[in-house]
Amino acid sequence: MPSALRIGLAGLGTVGAAVVRLLDRQAEALTSRTAREIVVTGVSARDPARDRGVDLSAAKWFDDPVVLARSGDIDIFVELIGGAESVALASVEAALFAGKSCVTANKALLATHGMRLAGIAEEKGVALSFEASVAGGIPIIKTLREGLAGNSIERVYGILNGTCNYILSRMETEKLSFAECLEEAQRLGYAEADPTFDIGGFDTAHKLAILTSLAFGTAINTQAIAVEGIQSITLADLEAADELGYRVKLLGVARRTEDGIEQRVHPTMVPKTSSIAQVMGVTNAVTIDADAVHELTLVGPGAGGEATASAIVADIADIARGVRSKPFGLPVGELVKAEIAPMQLHLGGYYVRLSVFDRPGAAAAIATRFAERDISLESIVQRRRPGVHAEPQGAVPVILITYATHEATIRAALEAVVADGFVALAPQFIRIERE
Amino acid sequence: MPSALRIGLAGLGTVGAAVVRLLDRQAEALTSRTAREIVVTGVSARDPARDRGVDLSAAKWFDDPVVLARSGDIDIFVELIGGAESVALASVEAALFAGKSCVTANKALLATHGMRLAGIAEEKGVALSFEASVAGGIPIIKTLREGLAGNSIERVYGILNGTCNYILSRMETEKLSFAECLEEAQRLGYAEADPTFDIGGFDTAHKLAILTSLAFGTAINTQAIAVEGIQSITLADLEAADELGYRVKLLGVARRTEDGIEQRVHPTMVPKTSSIAQVMGVTNAVTIDADAVHELTLVGPGAGGEATASAIVADIADIARGVRSKPFGLPVGELVKAEIAPMQLHLGGYYVRLSVFDRPGAAAAIATRFAERDISLESIVQRRRPGVHAEPQGAVPVILITYATHEATIRAALEAVVADGFVALAPQFIRIERE
Repeated sequence: MPSALRIGLAGLGTVGAAVVRLLDRQAEALTSRTAREIVVTGVSARDPARDRGVDLSAAKWFDDPVVLARSGDIDIFVELIGGAESVALASVEAALFAGKSCVTANKALLATHGMRLAGIAEEKGVALSFEASVAGGIPIIKTLREGLAGNSIERVYGILNGTCNYILSRMETEKLSFAECLEEAQRLGYAEADPTFDIGGFDTAHKLAILTSLAFGTAINTQAIAVEGIQSITLADLEAADELGYRVKLLGVARRTEDGIEQRVHPTMVPKTSSIAQVMGVTNAVTIDADAVHELTLVGPGAGGEATASAIVADIADIARGVRSKPFGLPVGELVKAEIAPMQLHLGGYYVRLSVFDRPGAAAAIATRFAERDISLESIVQRRRPGVHAEPQGAVPVILITYATHEATIRAALEAVVADGFVALAPQFIRIERE
Repeated sequence: MPSALRIGLAGLGTVGAAVVRLLDRQAEALTSRTAREIVVTGVSARDPARDRGVDLSAAKWFDDPVVLARSGDIDIFVELIGGAESVALASVEAALFAGKSCVTANKALLATHGMRLAGIAEEKGVALSFEASVAGGIPIIKTLREGLAGNSIERVYGILNGTCNYILSRMETEKLSFAECLEEAQRLGYAEADPTFDIGGFDTAHKLAILTSLAFGTAINTQAIAVEGIQSITLADLEAADELGYRVKLLGVARRTEDGIEQRVHPTMVPKTSSIAQVMGVTNAVTIDADAVHELTLVGPGAGGEATASAIVADIADIARGVRSKPFGLPVGELVKAEIAPMQLHLGGYYVRLSVFDRPGAAAAIATRFAERDISLESIVQRRRPGVHAEPQGAVPVILITYATHEATIRAALEAVVADGFVALAPQFIRIERE
């Protein structure tokens, strides 16, 4: 048997400790599968004294992860420090330049510097693996990079942020407000003290950037992603969605269109019967539409120490078996700069919720504004009596579902409705994604 | 770039033709991904004259697939002949002995001879790949073999036969009988003229045998699988299931128990809220419970030319990139002979439908037979008036849902109920599988 494969692990938080535990627990099976013994020989973290509940006595301690990354004591560098800049970047670069394969869960790093890092890995003939960076324990990177190698992909979309899905699920099932659910998520440790990164859609955007590159063979371009968070979603929206046969999810969607690759993150109405609509709580899911396989959906845990460690250990096992995939499937030099399909050209159905002054003919006048722009309505629901949700004095809720139209068109129609003075509040609209 | 990778393809039915088409359509991308050109240089099929809508002019024709398999003109042999014996077996053996990697979609071959073939592949240092053999386009083999390498798997279960799922879905949604739906499936080409292999559960059993080996590191043992088909499922069962919050699916289930590995194929009640319950029509789905990843579900097409070809081309691409996984994850010599957990020891909930003579105290007497054996009932539904489904003269339906009990116990209770003379028909029972 070849010599042991020596792992250097930087970052010993929940995920790092879980990786150590998993490598230990599965040591025998991993050796059988990969024909190599896998041992953690070097570690680095901020606090050497902290008890992490794992035995690190056999590993050498490094105060500086960059020194660990280029150390002769390790063969693979596992970066679990986090953050796109400074020490995470410096250590991964150092490891790659030293000819060591790298495994990372760092989506921000990949979304920002992934192309350059992949280029270095390719030049050095080493692996840069990042299964854990998107959708935690779901093997979506492997599926896109290897499992669907024979497909031309049309669309990839998914629930990529557990915090947002937890909040939306709780709002719906417990009839709570966004603020109440956010507070609860923070109390349970599902959301950060500053939740902007999650609920604003930025975490999903980083993950989508990586999936887009793998799916379409394009260079990562985070600037091309239209990002909206879930802050504006109200219980009234979720209840209206429910009544109309939909559920609201924060989706990351990348799609091949005539105008280029569309990349967007926003609250989305999905049919209640779709696979993705069943995904509740902190669970993640990704659906891929491709020419040969048609539709494939993967559902699993998007976060958590052990689930994330599962992905990291799978990457390590692949490297141990000698697998050297191109990080983004294709050689970096062949990843194309995608045409950006602007959101104004987005074609899809829309849910619109209006707070309409309760005057005779208001609904008809609004419908006219849509008809003028050739927007067909799938349904229109007007309630005489205000619902349980407070509307401004003298206003009633009107919900419209449109057939496919362009984003520019729906926005123009809504501007006209507002200009007409029919509505008491700014219109709410949510894009609909169909299977 | 290294020389082209030469494919020999035996079997040019729907799947074979789709493989040729996909390799052609994705030629450029595959070359970029694998750094090798992939060309079909040899083909074999029964009828050389038949028009398959694909250009095979560059490939050499072989009347005998065994001659193709060991031909110096090919590097990889793709077996799409089907059947566990004779020419499929002979050609795969010939290819492996000649030191050529093999790709096959042949679940019967693998379930019957997989261990021996994997041993030859291992000895010769070549690949034996079979992603297409289970769940068509779903990359479940890769997921079990590579994606979950860091996990200890507790259970793997799924909808592995599209014909059965189509029939059960149609029965439920269209309120049709089993016979009507089977006939429809045959008309649409979803079921064979002799449907026994599908509806009797044997196709699912072959696939389950392969998944079990990959999931638990055990040698394939098809004899260990308890197999029941869907022939006995009636619309009355589906409607009762619906009312109680369940749906009926033909599942293949393999589970690690205290008594060994349990392998079983039977109609199963699953909670309507579970991922697997959402899977309708010919779609397949597999769920894996594992210690690190917790729960992972993959949903996609289980059959069809292009979807199956997607899996075959992915296998070819892996081989082209130089990947040589052990066919069943571990070296064949390390696959253990699993203890077989007998069905009598199966522990789970049960749905029981009885046709009870409408006499005072009958239901209470039946409940007593369950109570005597410490079987707790989750629910009991007795209808005074017979439902839409004909019961024998003087009988009414009684539905019971039990909490977890042993198969031997429930069978004994039902025998007692029958011996008491309370029921007009043999009891129906369906096992319940919970998430």
